[in-house]
Amino acid sequence: MSFLSRHLSQATRRALLTPHIRLSSTAASPLEASKLVIEKTSSPKAKIPKDELVFGKTFTDHMLEIEWDQATGWGAPKISPYHNLSLDPSTIVFHYAFELFEGMKAYKDAQGQIRTFRGDKNMIRMNKSAERIALPKFKGEELQKLIDQLLILDQDFIPEGKGYSLYIRPTMIGTSASLGVSTPDKALLYVIASPVGPYYSSGFKPVSLEATDYAVRAWPGGVGDKKLGANYAPCVLPQLKAAERGFHQNLWLFGDEGYITEVGTMNVFFVIKDPKTGKKELVTAPLDGTILEGVTRDSILELTRQRLPADEWIVSERKFTIHEVKEAAEKGNLVEAFGAGTAAVVSPIKNIGYKGEDIDVPVALGNSGELTAQIAEWIRKIQYGEEEYKDWSRVAQ
Amino acid sequence: MSFLSRHLSQATRRALLTPHIRLSSTAASPLEASKLVIEKTSSPKAKIPKDELVFGKTFTDHMLEIEWDQATGWGAPKISPYHNLSLDPSTIVFHYAFELFEGMKAYKDAQGQIRTFRGDKNMIRMNKSAERIALPKFKGEELQKLIDQLLILDQDFIPEGKGYSLYIRPTMIGTSASLGVSTPDKALLYVIASPVGPYYSSGFKPVSLEATDYAVRAWPGGVGDKKLGANYAPCVLPQLKAAERGFHQNLWLFGDEGYITEVGTMNVFFVIKDPKTGKKELVTAPLDGTILEGVTRDSILELTRQRLPADEWIVSERKFTIHEVKEAAEKGNLVEAFGAGTAAVVSPIKNIGYKGEDIDVPVALGNSGELTAQIAEWIRKIQYGEEEYKDWSRVAQ
Repeated sequence: MSFLSRHLSQATRRALLTPHIRLSSTAASPLEASKLVIEKTSSPKAKIPKDELVFGKTFTDHMLEIEWDQATGWGAPKISPYHNLSLDPSTIVFHYAFELFEGMKAYKDAQGQIRTFRGDKNMIRMNKSAERIALPKFKGEELQKLIDQLLILDQDFIPEGKGYSLYIRPTMIGTSASLGVSTPDKALLYVIASPVGPYYSSGFKPVSLEATDYAVRAWPGGVGDKKLGANYAPCVLPQLKAAERGFHQNLWLFGDEGYITEVGTMNVFFVIKDPKTGKKELVTAPLDGTILEGVTRDSILELTRQRLPADEWIVSERKFTIHEVKEAAEKGNLVEAFGAGTAAVVSPIKNIGYKGEDIDVPVALGNSGELTAQIAEWIRKIQYGEEEYKDWSRVAQ
Repeated sequence: MSFLSRHLSQATRRALLTPHIRLSSTAASPLEASKLVIEKTSSPKAKIPKDELVFGKTFTDHMLEIEWDQATGWGAPKISPYHNLSLDPSTIVFHYAFELFEGMKAYKDAQGQIRTFRGDKNMIRMNKSAERIALPKFKGEELQKLIDQLLILDQDFIPEGKGYSLYIRPTMIGTSASLGVSTPDKALLYVIASPVGPYYSSGFKPVSLEATDYAVRAWPGGVGDKKLGANYAPCVLPQLKAAERGFHQNLWLFGDEGYITEVGTMNVFFVIKDPKTGKKELVTAPLDGTILEGVTRDSILELTRQRLPADEWIVSERKFTIHEVKEAAEKGNLVEAFGAGTAAVVSPIKNIGYKGEDIDVPVALGNSGELTAQIAEWIRKIQYGEEEYKDWSRVAQ
């Protein structure tokens, strides 16, 4: 036996000998929402007062779990009281980062209905993440149905009011108990949910960034476009170093050219004015494999392309550099900038530290740019069901 | 509160407001082996017959655990019966890959003593890995002493005989229960151990590799030189694809130049003859931040530099490409090649698939090259205490 095959589980070796068995097997069960089993809690938690909510610290009464096994496929989904996971210390999630997640939010609308925002996009991305690390795929609509059931059961945990929501965390981990570096033959998909308050309880708070050029978040041929756990732990040290130097967060650059890619764990947008034409360009980095395919990013691109007047605005996905931003700022052509992600929707930027100098970013409205505020309101209205836009808002039922 | 600080735990915010509190705090306890508490199993496991051992599948009776807390530091080390870990589903190890590990082996020598090989190097690397993802550091000698105690307690699980050993897996995970992407304020260091047989029960089995140029393992400024879980899950798909095309494992290339970096999860060495001088060069990629700092790699470099005649050999750490290897093979100057790592020590290579063509690698002795076999024997003798070399072999006591 070679050193290689020895590192593979017996199940994997069998799969390798009969290629594609995993993808084409018809015996393995698909993920089916109709098989859901619900075990309700007998000891409901006390609700946290709205003004004491901390992101991702407290959770609802229940959680959703679906086990997967290479031989039998997806098991029956189960909603049961929130509980610890009990795993063998050799489980591959602890050693080889077989793990991925999504971030979604549920909102109570004025009619008391429960709404989620573009969850279909999260399901597509979750499947892409799973495929990249050999974890199992599933039909997104089935998981959405199950999440709806969890939301209905735990709806009293969804705080009401502008900016309040229930943060939903679909997660998948490899649960094979073996130190061999191999394709997982067992996995667990689970969903937990945390009530959260508004990022900005009294208006935006623009942030200062430090441009990071000594560490690289992602690279071509890597996994920076997937929502894998692997992309996150290595990000914390540069954030910590930026914080120690007085910045709120770091701005990720790539390559000798200094391409701007992301901010902390969000996508990032800049508005730059063309002094010749007077037109403004909303620009963000393209999806070249190094950028997370943000749902908020995608929503912003679509809404701005539809709603901003084409004679005044250009909306671009293209590579751009810190030098371009610096020059625009120096010449008075930098209009505004903001991070974009599920947690904050948009997060205005007020300055960027780069090689010891500050690039000042205008905040025309005092604590954000005009477009930043406009986008936040456009998206909020759709999320809370005040405005219908395509199928972007789904009512749980 | 900004979107950034909101994502940080309160403890982290406090730490940020008083920079360096974590590193300079004297209140936090260091890791101390003398505080060890042992709870012996009351139900010893049956031993697996030697010829049925599978790498990383079965474990000894006990495990070692040491909890860390940002406020109080390292707790009392505990050896107790092997058991599942029970963790909140929001624990950061499941979401953000706060996890790292080491691989070591323990051997029974002819006198029945328990020996580990260069564990001090593993301790140094483990601390480097921890530092990179903001997990706590510790004094390596203290963990080595604790591992010695685990080995002594579970010594009946160390299989005797050439090639047999106990694989030791020190692991550290972040255990903060919060979805904020932040510096861990809780961690668990644990060690489990798995009895393993020889990679080659009846002589070497040389492997075929597929050169991977569509996916990239590591990047300058990334974390490819640290033993983080984050580096492993993304490696499995390219290995699986190579296997589906009939290769045992993949060979990682980097950049347009086609630099050879690693093989699967091992370092890699090539021997190339210079037709002008007749000298042979043993070459491996340099530690430029994209290569794992392998203990076996380091041992091979030191032993060959000491023991190979300088008038016949050059030992090089330098960048080299798949094209250089291909050309050497075509001209008859490629002598041999092998992977190097803790699990197999050395693993001979017989061919490399690259862009649909095969590069044949000579195996002069039938199933390995001459140097490959020589190195395996040099290292084995030190590991099993047949030969003393510096302080490379440590006797547990």
